[in-house]
Amino acid sequence: MEFAYSPKVEELRDKALAFLNDEVIPAEPRYQREKLEIPQWETPPVIDELKVRAQAAGLWNLFLPAGEQGLTNLEYAPIAEITGHSPWMMPEALNCSAPDTGNMELLHHFATEPVRDRWLPPLLAGEIRSVYGMTEPAVASSDARNISTRIDVDGDDLVINGRKWWSSGAMSPRCKVAIVMGQSQPDGPPHQQQSMVVVPMDTPGVNIVRSTSVFGYSDSGHGGHAEVEYVNVRVPRENLLGELHGGFALAQARLGPGRIHHAMRLIGMAERAFDLMCERSMVRFPFGKPIAEQGVFQDWVAEARIRIEQVRLLVLKTAWLMDTVGNKGAAIEISAIKVAAPQMATWVIDHAIQSFGGAGVSQDTPLAEMYEQARMLRIADGPDEVHKMSLARRELKRYRPRV
Amino acid sequence: MEFAYSPKVEELRDKALAFLNDEVIPAEPRYQREKLEIPQWETPPVIDELKVRAQAAGLWNLFLPAGEQGLTNLEYAPIAEITGHSPWMMPEALNCSAPDTGNMELLHHFATEPVRDRWLPPLLAGEIRSVYGMTEPAVASSDARNISTRIDVDGDDLVINGRKWWSSGAMSPRCKVAIVMGQSQPDGPPHQQQSMVVVPMDTPGVNIVRSTSVFGYSDSGHGGHAEVEYVNVRVPRENLLGELHGGFALAQARLGPGRIHHAMRLIGMAERAFDLMCERSMVRFPFGKPIAEQGVFQDWVAEARIRIEQVRLLVLKTAWLMDTVGNKGAAIEISAIKVAAPQMATWVIDHAIQSFGGAGVSQDTPLAEMYEQARMLRIADGPDEVHKMSLARRELKRYRPRV
Amino acid sequence: MEFAYSPKVEELRDKALAFLNDEVIPAEPRYQREKLEIPQWETPPVIDELKVRAQAAGLWNLFLPAGEQGLTNLEYAPIAEITGHSPWMMPEALNCSAPDTGNMELLHHFATEPVRDRWLPPLLAGEIRSVYGMTEPAVASSDARNISTRIDVDGDDLVINGRKWWSSGAMSPRCKVAIVMGQSQPDGPPHQQQSMVVVPMDTPGVNIVRSTSVFGYSDSGHGGHAEVEYVNVRVPRENLLGELHGGFALAQARLGPGRIHHAMRLIGMAERAFDLMCERSMVRFPFGKPIAEQGVFQDWVAEARIRIEQVRLLVLKTAWLMDTVGNKGAAIEISAIKVAAPQMATWVIDHAIQSFGGAGVSQDTPLAEMYEQARMLRIADGPDEVHKMSLARRELKRYRPRV
Amino acid sequence: MEFAYSPKVEELRDKALAFLNDEVIPAEPRYQREKLEIPQWETPPVIDELKVRAQAAGLWNLFLPAGEQGLTNLEYAPIAEITGHSPWMMPEALNCSAPDTGNMELLHHFATEPVRDRWLPPLLAGEIRSVYGMTEPAVASSDARNISTRIDVDGDDLVINGRKWWSSGAMSPRCKVAIVMGQSQPDGPPHQQQSMVVVPMDTPGVNIVRSTSVFGYSDSGHGGHAEVEYVNVRVPRENLLGELHGGFALAQARLGPGRIHHAMRLIGMAERAFDLMCERSMVRFPFGKPIAEQGVFQDWVAEARIRIEQVRLLVLKTAWLMDTVGNKGAAIEISAIKVAAPQMATWVIDHAIQSFGGAGVSQDTPLAEMYEQARMLRIADGPDEVHKMSLARRELKRYRPRV
Repeated sequence: MEFAYSPKVEELRDKALAFLNDEVIPAEPRYQREKLEIPQWETPPVIDELKVRAQAAGLWNLFLPAGEQGLTNLEYAPIAEITGHSPWMMPEALNCSAPDTGNMELLHHFATEPVRDRWLPPLLAGEIRSVYGMTEPAVASSDARNISTRIDVDGDDLVINGRKWWSSGAMSPRCKVAIVMGQSQPDGPPHQQQSMVVVPMDTPGVNIVRSTSVFGYSDSGHGGHAEVEYVNVRVPRENLLGELHGGFALAQARLGPGRIHHAMRLIGMAERAFDLMCERSMVRFPFGKPIAEQGVFQDWVAEARIRIEQVRLLVLKTAWLMDTVGNKGAAIEISAIKVAAPQMATWVIDHAIQSFGGAGVSQDTPLAEMYEQARMLRIADGPDEVHKMSLARRELKRYRPRV
Repeated sequence: MEFAYSPKVEELRDKALAFLNDEVIPAEPRYQREKLEIPQWETPPVIDELKVRAQAAGLWNLFLPAGEQGLTNLEYAPIAEITGHSPWMMPEALNCSAPDTGNMELLHHFATEPVRDRWLPPLLAGEIRSVYGMTEPAVASSDARNISTRIDVDGDDLVINGRKWWSSGAMSPRCKVAIVMGQSQPDGPPHQQQSMVVVPMDTPGVNIVRSTSVFGYSDSGHGGHAEVEYVNVRVPRENLLGELHGGFALAQARLGPGRIHHAMRLIGMAERAFDLMCERSMVRFPFGKPIAEQGVFQDWVAEARIRIEQVRLLVLKTAWLMDTVGNKGAAIEISAIKVAAPQMATWVIDHAIQSFGGAGVSQDTPLAEMYEQARMLRIADGPDEVHKMSLARRELKRYRPRV
Repeated sequence: MEFAYSPKVEELRDKALAFLNDEVIPAEPRYQREKLEIPQWETPPVIDELKVRAQAAGLWNLFLPAGEQGLTNLEYAPIAEITGHSPWMMPEALNCSAPDTGNMELLHHFATEPVRDRWLPPLLAGEIRSVYGMTEPAVASSDARNISTRIDVDGDDLVINGRKWWSSGAMSPRCKVAIVMGQSQPDGPPHQQQSMVVVPMDTPGVNIVRSTSVFGYSDSGHGGHAEVEYVNVRVPRENLLGELHGGFALAQARLGPGRIHHAMRLIGMAERAFDLMCERSMVRFPFGKPIAEQGVFQDWVAEARIRIEQVRLLVLKTAWLMDTVGNKGAAIEISAIKVAAPQMATWVIDHAIQSFGGAGVSQDTPLAEMYEQARMLRIADGPDEVHKMSLARRELKRYRPRV
Repeated sequence: MEFAYSPKVEELRDKALAFLNDEVIPAEPRYQREKLEIPQWETPPVIDELKVRAQAAGLWNLFLPAGEQGLTNLEYAPIAEITGHSPWMMPEALNCSAPDTGNMELLHHFATEPVRDRWLPPLLAGEIRSVYGMTEPAVASSDARNISTRIDVDGDDLVINGRKWWSSGAMSPRCKVAIVMGQSQPDGPPHQQQSMVVVPMDTPGVNIVRSTSVFGYSDSGHGGHAEVEYVNVRVPRENLLGELHGGFALAQARLGPGRIHHAMRLIGMAERAFDLMCERSMVRFPFGKPIAEQGVFQDWVAEARIRIEQVRLLVLKTAWLMDTVGNKGAAIEISAIKVAAPQMATWVIDHAIQSFGGAGVSQDTPLAEMYEQARMLRIADGPDEVHKMSLARRELKRYRPRV
């Protein structure tokens, strides 16, 4: 047992922290300004400049296990945390933002060669973006068996009909390709009913219906969250990812690393909120002494630190488990961090907001928008309650009376 | 002790509930649509139509103690609750929305005759709106002694210099007049340092700098929240409200009824969220049975009901105390509801959001925007922590060892 | 709506408060001393002296609706609260302690004349005590249908076989009679399976097996909590309470007022804990200033006050509902206070303990033992979870889609 | 970074788990029985038998860094966790129970040779027990500067006057020696006012006044918690530990490892409670299905697992920090686990109690007594609030504006 980062990770962290503090945080005001100046859904130009610098700094595509760095989950996790300090800029600047990372992994491992060659290189180069079509508006899609989009084999083609929402990024003009999950065999065994397919966004029948907001935010800088209709969308069968009716397993495989990334970014957000509230506490003097010297505020600081540290260790251990015993062996921990990280982050950010008063809920700090992101992650990829149920059932198995 | 509403209140409640269910809730989609069609900051036309109907229905200006209904706080409170079910439409439709209600009370009681005659009638008629300039960006204004805007006597004039924010409603073209609090005697005794003055919005030197958002919402339908700069703004001395240097007492007087209104509207919001989540629970079937039959959800329903009922009783008792022993005698309870009502409402609404999943955070339900309003009220008019401190100090006085 | 106590209640409260402060609290050290001096399970003599004084003061049997005062639930509730300030002494001193009050009500309303004449007068006189045999060790008796004790009709007799525990008071030599619930018709309709019967404790076959403790306390001053075995216990049929197979309804009827009493006593305990922690905060100086001036402590004081006030209002409203629309009409509120009162009381007492440090957990304050009582009431008469489920189901009925 | 236990630790854990499951848990009923049969405050004979077996099994004095195993904090921590599964038996059986472990460390490092030779061997052999006299009844001793016991130099002697309480173990006839902290230089610099001295319990003037209970438990099997009066107690100067006036630093040094031990034992208790509640959930059927299948219970299981895992990782990391950078470098984490571990444990145990109903609060499960122990540890060695304040102040230092 050893709690120090390896020298390789320390070196990467130093680079990433330097990039965060020297390049990204100073550029945040420019990002906000550009968002107001460019057409909605487009990417602020500052992001493209940062991408160039990130590549030069050796901070590009770090998420990719097969990349030149070949980082393990445990090695990449601390970098993901650092990107969370500036969650709207740094992940994208490093080409490490959701849902592209998970989509690139799927393409890498499960696409046919022509499909992979068509879509993976521009994604790896950060030239285009992609979308992941899973959740549906009409059903409780936390239970994957409820998914109702149809994927039908028709000769050499696959035909897709259905409606997805929370297709994050799809409002962006840079978004060129979707990975869509749908029912291909509704009467098959429970985990053999779904398939996953690659759909170019310009395929006839792919219609973007509208965007949905999260609290009052459109997340426009990232292409928002689209509701997308698929009407007789026809793609060649080679666009299938993996096996026909094998979509459930792919969805599971995709989730593991994504949970680490989300959780670590949430820790980064919490640390940023912590920094902001502590800095503020030094310069604000209600009732004659700085907030930093008030008992209730100190209680929050201590609670925040205790909560952050615990979640970080749990996520790092989960990453280590994934590296050593695989997603399945880490199933309890993966559920645990899916629940624990957003709960911790919403708690910390909410208290930072309270420390700031009016500035905390407004555009003058990143706190309210961070809260929105963290709160959303108690719902996205399955609500807390589903993950807790699943975790509990695994635990309880051990206690079943033996017959 | 008697917990039934009086026949007078029951009759008013019936009218208000009928108006809510027959006129307001069915008009909500139209309100949302119109907000997108009209220029930002303008009032959706549906509101003006509803105002006419509310007047016809005898539901106009009910907040005003001196109005024809002459409602006590205890009688008005249940009506305020009902308006909270549709918080963006119904309070304004009944001409009972903040900050106009508090401002009308100040004008009624403390303005000189010419000033009152100039501004009160159009406010009572719902023709114009008003703003309350209290909070400042540069200081911790939860401690009123920190307020730094200057109000200087200069011959027969008052000259105002300073910067206020969270001036709610000021972005609306209908907003015509401000009530501004500022320092007139910085070296006076603690509660004799401030004055309050009526400032027409078109007075030279009144500059609207920008609007601030709340969790991504601009609150555009209500005129948003403005940052307003006052540069050598000059008004005649008759624009003073009450005594020179007597602003602190006015601010206190204004707060009492406002706290009841806010708290009851929050209860209405919580009841709306409760309705929504219970309705949803009947028609959504994850994992094979309706959400309504799942234990964790039932736990939320019970907790929500228990919390709502308790806060409602506490607010009603507070209203009764204000009616019988005055704001001062109700000081502990006024602080208590300032803390308890938003905490309860954020809890209930947050769980309703969680019950809805993606729809809960988006524009498809009113929940996320209700959350924003409830969360804001843990900060506006002083953060929870200040009210708890003040409540505790009053309680602890009773225990001081007698010498 | 009116939140003032009636003059009649105010007068009774004055008497009860005087008795509490002048007679009971000063006698607490004597009670503790006597408990150590007398045989375990006996009643400290000070209680008998206080009983005489309570009778003289007109504070006797106030719980009884048919008593000379004829108090409603709403009128009795504030007196029950006052008794909770000294929960081991004052309820018994006023002959208002559980389970005797509920048992006396059952005897009064449902016993045959000879049985009532035998047992009610000595109970009303406070000469004997009684026990209520409901809960069983082998089954989840929060679901009454699980109760497995048998009550069989055998000619003119009833024969009881089974095992009960948490028979509070049964260890006391003064405890002379039990009311026992058991299955008389296991295959009857769900609410027609149980009967209730009066069993003199000296009937052959009634065996006290042992006592159970609560967090280390034996509750010896009140006759502890016994496990009682009933082996072929034979009583005449006239000992039946109410109808044969009608026990379920009696159990429900018994619970309503009992819930008010328990809840109000819990409020009294919370107020006592609040007093103690506030008094302590004035005289204890860690880190250079009194606890009373430390922010975190003030936060607890405010939270405690807010929680206590809300629960008190909810219980009083529930009492009023029971008086005006009956137990059934008050079902949601009765469940609500069963959950809310012990939660509030454990919270307040736990924070009072924390304020006292070592003295708080020890015998030097009544706090730890109060905590035990409050914590037990989250379990006794059904755990929180059962009441929340039941409350939620009643609420959700309103939302069932109409076909 | 590496989360697996080392082979050495795995081997020790296997031995300790075997001892727990094969020797200790099966002996628990005997321990409870013997406690009732022997005089209060004596040690149940089963403990002495287990001590012999633990020595044979190589599980003796593992806590001692200088012992033959030479375990680091990180290596010993997982063993301490295992002992927490049976907290009244296993720590003592392994000669690893508080306060003896901390006292042995002090004697080893800071006693003069004659004093060390007199007291350390019998303690290491488990033949006698010892007491740590720190807390005082009259002052807020969470602030060490408040300690008022006097230690005066008088020629070649030290003379002790004062009163200590919570001297755990002192009621036991086996307790032979105390380490006492007191003021030797009240007007010295803040951390140079105290001294620590070794006092044989049979020294004239050492008077045991009484025992204090925790909730209703006397902790009699471990010698309870005594209030001890020191009246002109005279010991030779060689009984001083370390430097004169250097007691504060010794107290700090003593605390570090003790915090790890307490925290890990709390994790063990939580795991035991978790086991018990999960096992119970399989065999108890309220409302027609096992508790294990009820949503609210599953939610508790998940929450409990998430909380336990996080605290365990935090404590292990703290142990690692103490091993690598010392107590001072681990100061924030040591405070963090002092707060986090008892909070987690009280939460888990409380929910286990609730799962058991009446059995949970009684002597039929170890849960209520475990709760008492965990709750006490939110107070002992300084209340949560003091540790949070101290943690926060360390954190906030980083944010002080640079001049």
